[in-house]
Amino acid sequence: MFNKITIVGCGLIGSSILRAAIKKKVSKTIHAYDKSKETVSFLKNMKFDENIETDLSIAVKNTDLIIIAAPLSSYKEILLSIKDHINHETILTDTGSVKKEVNKIVQGFNLKNISWVASHPIAGTEESGPAAGFADLFQNRWCIISPGENAKKENIEKVKKFWELIGCKTKIMSFNDHDYILSLTSHLPHAIAYNIVKSAVESKEKLKSDVIKYSAGGLRDFTRIASSDPSMWRDIFIDNSENIIEVLDTFTKNLEEMKKAIKEKNSNKLIQIFSSTKDVRKEIIKEGQDIDKPDFGRKKN
Amino acid sequence: MFNKITIVGCGLIGSSILRAAIKKKVSKTIHAYDKSKETVSFLKNMKFDENIETDLSIAVKNTDLIIIAAPLSSYKEILLSIKDHINHETILTDTGSVKKEVNKIVQGFNLKNISWVASHPIAGTEESGPAAGFADLFQNRWCIISPGENAKKENIEKVKKFWELIGCKTKIMSFNDHDYILSLTSHLPHAIAYNIVKSAVESKEKLKSDVIKYSAGGLRDFTRIASSDPSMWRDIFIDNSENIIEVLDTFTKNLEEMKKAIKEKNSNKLIQIFSSTKDVRKEIIKEGQDIDKPDFGRKKN
Repeated sequence: MFNKITIVGCGLIGSSILRAAIKKKVSKTIHAYDKSKETVSFLKNMKFDENIETDLSIAVKNTDLIIIAAPLSSYKEILLSIKDHINHETILTDTGSVKKEVNKIVQGFNLKNISWVASHPIAGTEESGPAAGFADLFQNRWCIISPGENAKKENIEKVKKFWELIGCKTKIMSFNDHDYILSLTSHLPHAIAYNIVKSAVESKEKLKSDVIKYSAGGLRDFTRIASSDPSMWRDIFIDNSENIIEVLDTFTKNLEEMKKAIKEKNSNKLIQIFSSTKDVRKEIIKEGQDIDKPDFGRKKN
Repeated sequence: MFNKITIVGCGLIGSSILRAAIKKKVSKTIHAYDKSKETVSFLKNMKFDENIETDLSIAVKNTDLIIIAAPLSSYKEILLSIKDHINHETILTDTGSVKKEVNKIVQGFNLKNISWVASHPIAGTEESGPAAGFADLFQNRWCIISPGENAKKENIEKVKKFWELIGCKTKIMSFNDHDYILSLTSHLPHAIAYNIVKSAVESKEKLKSDVIKYSAGGLRDFTRIASSDPSMWRDIFIDNSENIIEVLDTFTKNLEEMKKAIKEKNSNKLIQIFSSTKDVRKEIIKEGQDIDKPDFGRKKN
């Protein structure tokens, strides 16, 4: 499908793209770059038989598709390093969790030869680094594609095809809609998970080990999310702060309503709150975005 | 170990105790009661070869151990039904998620022949009903044991032994400490999960299906908890309201601090908040209360 593709940044997501792209043979040659020496040496040891690059300007030369899979806060530096080395009509995409701010940065560079088609594969685990990646990470996951204003239709199609080849379902969405929906489905849950774990463990110090011990009653499920990469989440909260503040305000308003019902021991109101969320899970399972399997108790099937 | 034990209430927890007690042969005879005809007929169809009872007064006659595995709001009714039929020295235990209020109720009955030793096995899934139960539910899970003030030492030991036989690790704890710790590890996470799912789906109606579709970014993990049995949670929030309000206040205070950091785009403060929770998960895994396996992306091992 491509002659050359270049993956910039090979952590959990980038190294999974690398593995998947090799497995699905999406390009004649695949070039992967990471600025960390450790990551480069890890990838070389994996003997993928692909080109692991240490010079970004070489990595992007004559390439058909650049995929930035690096932290949001590193985009400027990456674009500065590559802008004078694109000698060929190239599609630029990424994997970032926020789009509006990133789009401003890319448009600001006014890059020649570049067709900008942003992507966000909604996939990941709570781990990070190239050792945590795996080829099937994108299987049946959605990838949201947000084309820049001057992107050619054929290039949007190529980006779509690329994600579909490595397992994703794709959806075209504007930068604004993307950032609002993700603030609800991903950024809000992460903010709350960090906050709940913090609130639980900063309680009376003598009880801390008990809190850990008896975490199977619910807390443990939040610690999974709350152990995701801190600097990645810092970038997301800064880039999407307006939407996140808006949804956190809604959350706080609802929480105050629940607190009132608890204080008043208002049985009907509590049942109403708890029942209102039950169907959401069924709809998620129907959508194929989770499996209908108990997890708390880790039932063995 | 016992001649006769009686399980009162056979939903997820009660039917799992039934299955585990049969498997581990903890008693010569095992009697199980449920007030729902459907549950009784389900259990009879399972052909456990145990005594599935429809008359509670018969079920508790000559029994050595009664285990109430029914909703907190049904304890009064159950105790009223059995109090005149205990003709024998009997240990009374339960599986309830809140202890202080329940203890008041039991003490109020001033039951003869009864040694009250409360229990709380911290195990469960988001499912409910007897079909969802399984014998291994308690394997490696903690069971907190809170003896009533007049419980004999040998009876506390028997209750401890009972839970250990069906797979639990046990810990003796006061009613008050139990309710406070569980408000942090279980009741707070559930309150927040219900609230987060409610906040996410009540957003702009036109976006609701998108919220469901892209839930793999975090929200989906909360819907699991937020689909637990509403009436069980109503009971817990009413019985443990004081502790829950206290921890929700701490949570709100921390959330306001986080909101401030997001509004100010305070990078250092955000990194500090997100880093403070990373180690908690490691400690939980070390305690054997979760497994070190990515779950978001459902990596296949």
